[in-house]
Amino acid sequence: MKTNAGRFFEDYRLGETIVHAVPRTLSGGERALYHALYPARGAVYSSDAFARTCGLPAAPMDDLIAFHTVFGKTVPDISLNAVANLGYAEGRWLAPVWAGDTLRSESVVIGLKENSNGKSGVVYVRSRGFNQHGVVVLDYVRWVMVKKRDLSAPAPEAVVPELAAVVDPASLVVPEGLDFSAYDFALAGERHRWGDYAVGEKIDHVDGVTIEDAEHMLATRLWQNTSKVHFDVTQREDGRRLIYGGHVISLARALSFNGLANAQMIVALNAGAHANPCFAGDTVRAWSEVLDRAETGAKGVGALRLRLVAVKDGAAPFAHKGADGKYAPEVLLDLDYWALVPL
Amino acid sequence: MKTNAGRFFEDYRLGETIVHAVPRTLSGGERALYHALYPARGAVYSSDAFARTCGLPAAPMDDLIAFHTVFGKTVPDISLNAVANLGYAEGRWLAPVWAGDTLRSESVVIGLKENSNGKSGVVYVRSRGFNQHGVVVLDYVRWVMVKKRDLSAPAPEAVVPELAAVVDPASLVVPEGLDFSAYDFALAGERHRWGDYAVGEKIDHVDGVTIEDAEHMLATRLWQNTSKVHFDVTQREDGRRLIYGGHVISLARALSFNGLANAQMIVALNAGAHANPCFAGDTVRAWSEVLDRAETGAKGVGALRLRLVAVKDGAAPFAHKGADGKYAPEVLLDLDYWALVPL
Amino acid sequence: MKTNAGRFFEDYRLGETIVHAVPRTLSGGERALYHALYPARGAVYSSDAFARTCGLPAAPMDDLIAFHTVFGKTVPDISLNAVANLGYAEGRWLAPVWAGDTLRSESVVIGLKENSNGKSGVVYVRSRGFNQHGVVVLDYVRWVMVKKRDLSAPAPEAVVPELAAVVDPASLVVPEGLDFSAYDFALAGERHRWGDYAVGEKIDHVDGVTIEDAEHMLATRLWQNTSKVHFDVTQREDGRRLIYGGHVISLARALSFNGLANAQMIVALNAGAHANPCFAGDTVRAWSEVLDRAETGAKGVGALRLRLVAVKDGAAPFAHKGADGKYAPEVLLDLDYWALVPL
Repeated sequence: MKTNAGRFFEDYRLGETIVHAVPRTLSGGERALYHALYPARGAVYSSDAFARTCGLPAAPMDDLIAFHTVFGKTVPDISLNAVANLGYAEGRWLAPVWAGDTLRSESVVIGLKENSNGKSGVVYVRSRGFNQHGVVVLDYVRWVMVKKRDLSAPAPEAVVPELAAVVDPASLVVPEGLDFSAYDFALAGERHRWGDYAVGEKIDHVDGVTIEDAEHMLATRLWQNTSKVHFDVTQREDGRRLIYGGHVISLARALSFNGLANAQMIVALNAGAHANPCFAGDTVRAWSEVLDRAETGAKGVGALRLRLVAVKDGAAPFAHKGADGKYAPEVLLDLDYWALVPL
Repeated sequence: MKTNAGRFFEDYRLGETIVHAVPRTLSGGERALYHALYPARGAVYSSDAFARTCGLPAAPMDDLIAFHTVFGKTVPDISLNAVANLGYAEGRWLAPVWAGDTLRSESVVIGLKENSNGKSGVVYVRSRGFNQHGVVVLDYVRWVMVKKRDLSAPAPEAVVPELAAVVDPASLVVPEGLDFSAYDFALAGERHRWGDYAVGEKIDHVDGVTIEDAEHMLATRLWQNTSKVHFDVTQREDGRRLIYGGHVISLARALSFNGLANAQMIVALNAGAHANPCFAGDTVRAWSEVLDRAETGAKGVGALRLRLVAVKDGAAPFAHKGADGKYAPEVLLDLDYWALVPL
Repeated sequence: MKTNAGRFFEDYRLGETIVHAVPRTLSGGERALYHALYPARGAVYSSDAFARTCGLPAAPMDDLIAFHTVFGKTVPDISLNAVANLGYAEGRWLAPVWAGDTLRSESVVIGLKENSNGKSGVVYVRSRGFNQHGVVVLDYVRWVMVKKRDLSAPAPEAVVPELAAVVDPASLVVPEGLDFSAYDFALAGERHRWGDYAVGEKIDHVDGVTIEDAEHMLATRLWQNTSKVHFDVTQREDGRRLIYGGHVISLARALSFNGLANAQMIVALNAGAHANPCFAGDTVRAWSEVLDRAETGAKGVGALRLRLVAVKDGAAPFAHKGADGKYAPEVLLDLDYWALVPL
């Protein structure tokens, strides 16, 4: 067989390193497409001039461009036969990605646990993205439920990694040179500083975007994510294309500009759940909650831990989980991350 | 409140300067998207090599990329609560925008007039776009009807600015170095020179494009225009997304290549009206009328004043206004501009 | 008349050279769009770093970006009034196209044959794409059936050029410096070498993509292809937009990654037929057949001659032609090309 059918649960070995294919050079083209696909307005990623006033040599590529690029490469090896993308943890952005950089990805299998039904299992991987200098730009853990090809394959010894519930703020990496002490709040779009956000505060980001199939497919292909369900209407009985969860992440993050314009750079991903599927025609909105605050030691730079929730139109205000602990059916995404904010 | 609900009529003060947020660096990515979104074929903007034969160091960004970028930044402050975009005047392109340039915008409130119903008012602003060197690249007046938040807010003293009906051709700014004396008409696509166009001549541009929601949303986001009605189907009772007027401008301008291939660079916007709303599924066509001709003093460079009218499929030939002075229902756009054309 | 209605059959003269309009500079923007529009993953075109390990100075623009750009320029002069795009032959990629290059096109009329019905005729052209240095980057023959405007125009003497059934592999041009001796199969995505492919071997590429109108229009405009039927729903009785055949070529070529990941660079187009029309909503799949193998003399570089067939969902496995020699109705494209593959 010349074609790749993807790995099944019994194909993973604890501790193995999987080198993912197809390195990718990113340019102003990817950036422009990102800003066309999402209403992204963060000034550091939008303007070389603004980035320079923040101590950087130019505008880096958006944090989530790095995420999607690194993630997309893992799909053919990790999640082509996944039933569900179960969670994220311990994600850290370790170095900015610049226009012209080339990214590639590797994953290490850090956990395996067959499900009691014997038909599938959970695979835990630590994925890392490298630039052309071999520098790790992103490091995160993801776990997915993967089908078995051969139901009679023996179950591996169950190993479930211990994962931090939250990335320790002391381990956040502030991009080299970043300095918000001359930050221009008028050009950034909002006047709210790190100190203006209180733990427990919730923000309704107001705006909504109705999703089109053409758009999420453009995005998903741009990251070279090959998961069939995003592109091929024959893959689901209902003839709908499931939208890549990362599309919802980027859309919600961009919508959160309205209220969090100064949450400029994501530096850690603490946790994430794709609570319900998203389809074309859904109108997506977002709200955030301030979960924690931390100092970083960098000049003028604080960190906020934020919960970002994407919902479909019709959701109750600040819809999240019901009394039973389950997500409300209108909730699409529940993301927990650290972002850098001017003090 | 952390979020921005936009300004209402009573929030504007005559003479105030509003610094608009989120500067934007433009690159070959924005240019490629522009040429994918519109059938743009103007040779000066399409080819570095062609631009060099016209005395420029490279192909500038399309004139309307500059316009949309500068305009988009004004939306959150000027037209987020606008009922209607009423007009444009005195628009001038003052310097080319190059790949790598960063644009930002400011507006000065130059007129205010509350409507007699007391529910809204007209706000006149002069908006200017600056590059990273502080050079003004675009300067234009726009007026919009904006809702009042508080109907009991007192009406300001009515001030309506006097605006030129047409930009004086003596004030047109020809890009530094532009020289059409070695212009290659074969590569440009048509043989018609400035002298071949007669005042009063009308041109049916023949071609049409059927609009998709995915496309106008990509465009509108690319310019960081945040107006809700373009993205969110819940904003209108009919569940349709209103298409950003600038999308129709760019589409009509690109369609006008067929007959005006040598109207290379827009240098002034005399007036403009978005006559009727445009929605996905509409097939847009365009026609032009030559309104005036002027010399510029630059080598080989003349100027044509053109009326560009965009219509929906089904419009009568050269559809414009009825006997009552009102636009025919199929007319979408009526734009009056100056363009540079080889002599 | 200022507008261009396109040429009709009687407007072509044997031997004439037509200089096509609107040169185009290509950048990382066009590349990013190409990779968003198609699931393209070829490592040489995706990564500067990978291309360097193959002896190139950077990742060239995808081979089909060059093809579409050169082809698009010919449309206003060759196929605006075409009834059908009948075939391709003797296509050769002669030099890589780099980001920043400017392409223009010329065609020479090499054959003319009026149809027996006297209403149309077949026009054969050899089209060539040049970069800004005047170097030919692509050379191919295409023939189209073109309507007559004046049915009483006399038929020209019939001249049908003799065309090679297959490009002689000895005439394939390997990009200067290309060297696959240090090729990284893990990063490229598959382990199969030139020697692993047997003549007669067929590969089902597994994946499918459902096409959207917004996507094929973005693509077709990007190449400045002006054919009305791709954009304007009023052009056909069924109100559907016919999809540019090149969109199907690029989609099928990208889908063929799964099984032909190492068929890195197309260097010749032997033949091609657009067997049936394609419309939005069609789910496109692809299969390939190895037709021949050849050595190139370049270090580590072999060539495979491949048949690439695009089909609509519902096609039988490896659907091609029926017993009557006609294409099955689900077959969209039958392309015959040479690609460079690591030994």
